[in-house]
Amino acid sequence: MMNKYYMPTRVIMGNDCIAMNSELFITLGKKALIVTGAQSAKRNGAEKDVRTALESVGIPYLVFDKVMSNPTIACVYEGATFAKENRADFIIAIGGGSPMDAGKAIALLASQDIMEGSLFSGNYEKKVLPMAFVPTTAGTGSEVTQYSILTNNKAQTKTSIASDLLFPTIAFLDAKYTEHLGIITTIYTTIDALSHAVEGMLSARASIVSDALAVTSIQMIINCVPDMLQALKSGSKVVFNMKQREQLLQASFLAGMVIAQTGTTAVHSMGYSLTYFKNIEHGRANGLLLGEYLKLVEKVQPDLAGRILETMNFSEAEQFQELLNKLLGEKEEISSEEIRQYSKMAIQTKNIANCVVKPTEEDIITMFALSFTK
Amino acid sequence: MMNKYYMPTRVIMGNDCIAMNSELFITLGKKALIVTGAQSAKRNGAEKDVRTALESVGIPYLVFDKVMSNPTIACVYEGATFAKENRADFIIAIGGGSPMDAGKAIALLASQDIMEGSLFSGNYEKKVLPMAFVPTTAGTGSEVTQYSILTNNKAQTKTSIASDLLFPTIAFLDAKYTEHLGIITTIYTTIDALSHAVEGMLSARASIVSDALAVTSIQMIINCVPDMLQALKSGSKVVFNMKQREQLLQASFLAGMVIAQTGTTAVHSMGYSLTYFKNIEHGRANGLLLGEYLKLVEKVQPDLAGRILETMNFSEAEQFQELLNKLLGEKEEISSEEIRQYSKMAIQTKNIANCVVKPTEEDIITMFALSFTK
Repeated sequence: MMNKYYMPTRVIMGNDCIAMNSELFITLGKKALIVTGAQSAKRNGAEKDVRTALESVGIPYLVFDKVMSNPTIACVYEGATFAKENRADFIIAIGGGSPMDAGKAIALLASQDIMEGSLFSGNYEKKVLPMAFVPTTAGTGSEVTQYSILTNNKAQTKTSIASDLLFPTIAFLDAKYTEHLGIITTIYTTIDALSHAVEGMLSARASIVSDALAVTSIQMIINCVPDMLQALKSGSKVVFNMKQREQLLQASFLAGMVIAQTGTTAVHSMGYSLTYFKNIEHGRANGLLLGEYLKLVEKVQPDLAGRILETMNFSEAEQFQELLNKLLGEKEEISSEEIRQYSKMAIQTKNIANCVVKPTEEDIITMFALSFTK
Repeated sequence: MMNKYYMPTRVIMGNDCIAMNSELFITLGKKALIVTGAQSAKRNGAEKDVRTALESVGIPYLVFDKVMSNPTIACVYEGATFAKENRADFIIAIGGGSPMDAGKAIALLASQDIMEGSLFSGNYEKKVLPMAFVPTTAGTGSEVTQYSILTNNKAQTKTSIASDLLFPTIAFLDAKYTEHLGIITTIYTTIDALSHAVEGMLSARASIVSDALAVTSIQMIINCVPDMLQALKSGSKVVFNMKQREQLLQASFLAGMVIAQTGTTAVHSMGYSLTYFKNIEHGRANGLLLGEYLKLVEKVQPDLAGRILETMNFSEAEQFQELLNKLLGEKEEISSEEIRQYSKMAIQTKNIANCVVKPTEEDIITMFALSFTK
């Protein structure tokens, strides 16, 4: 069995890590394009910190703040054109998964001409603009992966660009940017990270490194869940102290390192349809499906499921399902027609081939149905 | 607290991983210098596999096989001159720690002119020859670190070059090259890896990533110890099956990733004198000292020591000491004069500043004395 490890991003963690390492931007280039969404990076202070750091080392910059949730192909081409027209030679992405995923595609498209038809081919010249990434949610792990996931309207789903070129050069992890996230966003993004760690252990490419990181990530997340449930119950908006926020950000980073090695599994491939067609937020979509998939694994490979459940101090997958149910609250409606359509799409994805326990189309239909049973 | 993660080496693990990835050598350069010791790489088949792979992709190569155990500064300058004279543009190091450490220094010195007085300064031009590393022992972890440790006769110790330039580009981990190592070499190199993982957890730079990897590494090693003791008792030469050899090689790789983040502690700084002056093998030197240092930590920070001991299923450091005693057998003699001399040297090293529990010179003297008590 051949196994690989590669994750070349330089990760810097801690309070004020951008201000304390502003000289690193000099190593990336002479003119920055800040890629972000319309609002959150301004609200949480991350964009201001990046601007201040760039100004302190005399690097001019532009801002492309048009990245929407689940960014489209058109959006990243627009950003790349803007970068090229203004001769930005490195990218700083600030935000949750959407600005980071867009930032990677923009860094690639600004360095070379790639036709839309070849965007997901993986065949690129070996060049890309250097990237510094600042996650402002704790979920996606995109700051340490080689994936850029874009909304692909032609394929009616989310599609990944996967290339080692897309690993950010530097990631700055400062938990204070996640401090004011509301409880719902906190839960959904946390579940995304949890899903990465669990799916990593269920991947055919799981290795000793990815498992070591996944176990720690899962444990850190599970330790934060009681306070999450408490906050959900009490309706408090700001939930956590900084120490917990740091735990969640680090858990998300570890889970990102995991999927950089393993890729994701059936859960993500099924979840993409829920996001594309039913506008269910990505982390929530994974959370809705993760319990049923682990139950399937428990039937076919009880030892594998057991190793994951053990890290959570659970003895059976049903307990994990119950925990997810509490975190996710009331479930959406889904029709048999929708289930058939989404299952047909999911079974064709490479994520299914990446599973240790490969579900059949029938399994996927059953999982969708059970996942939405109230 | 600022924390960092960086380890950009591409690691490829598995049986026949060199033959199955020979095209990767093309990405490194046009003419290879193989750096190795006089014999072992020939005996274990690694050099033959590298030659075959290079020939299959039409890359010419030369061999520098003059690396001795604990390589000297003179040795790496000789290797670099040989590389430059022959216009080798990348380095393949094959062996235990010695050829790998030498290979890194040669890659650096062949890319730029560095006077001997500046060799350990850390101030280099940002260039180095690309490197592919093939470990043939499971202990040093050098294939995934930025350290090149050389015998420094002027300073009468071993001194590290530490630079991010020294991370190998690629590491090939194939456990079959470790299959015929004798039990004593297996034990000493394993203890070196164990020491890296434990010291990583005792380092002031320990992080969530390094701890996750260290815990897994320690557990994998401890799982192999009963068979090691059995082999030691029965006097058998070839001890392990391939699965165990793989476990040890992966544990050593993980422990290398750990010290790439954390550096080493008091144990390594004390051990260098034992190797330099008393010719005690590096892994054995660490093993002799590790138990007493963990006992000191247990006194000052019981929780920290407890977390490490827990991963080994021990409740106190004395149990770990007993295990090491069994693995190490009869101990060398050491005089009070030697202890005073080595302690004076150790207290000045940066490894001491890197400890969570910083020993005083008096502590170091006591640890040396207790470590050699029969």
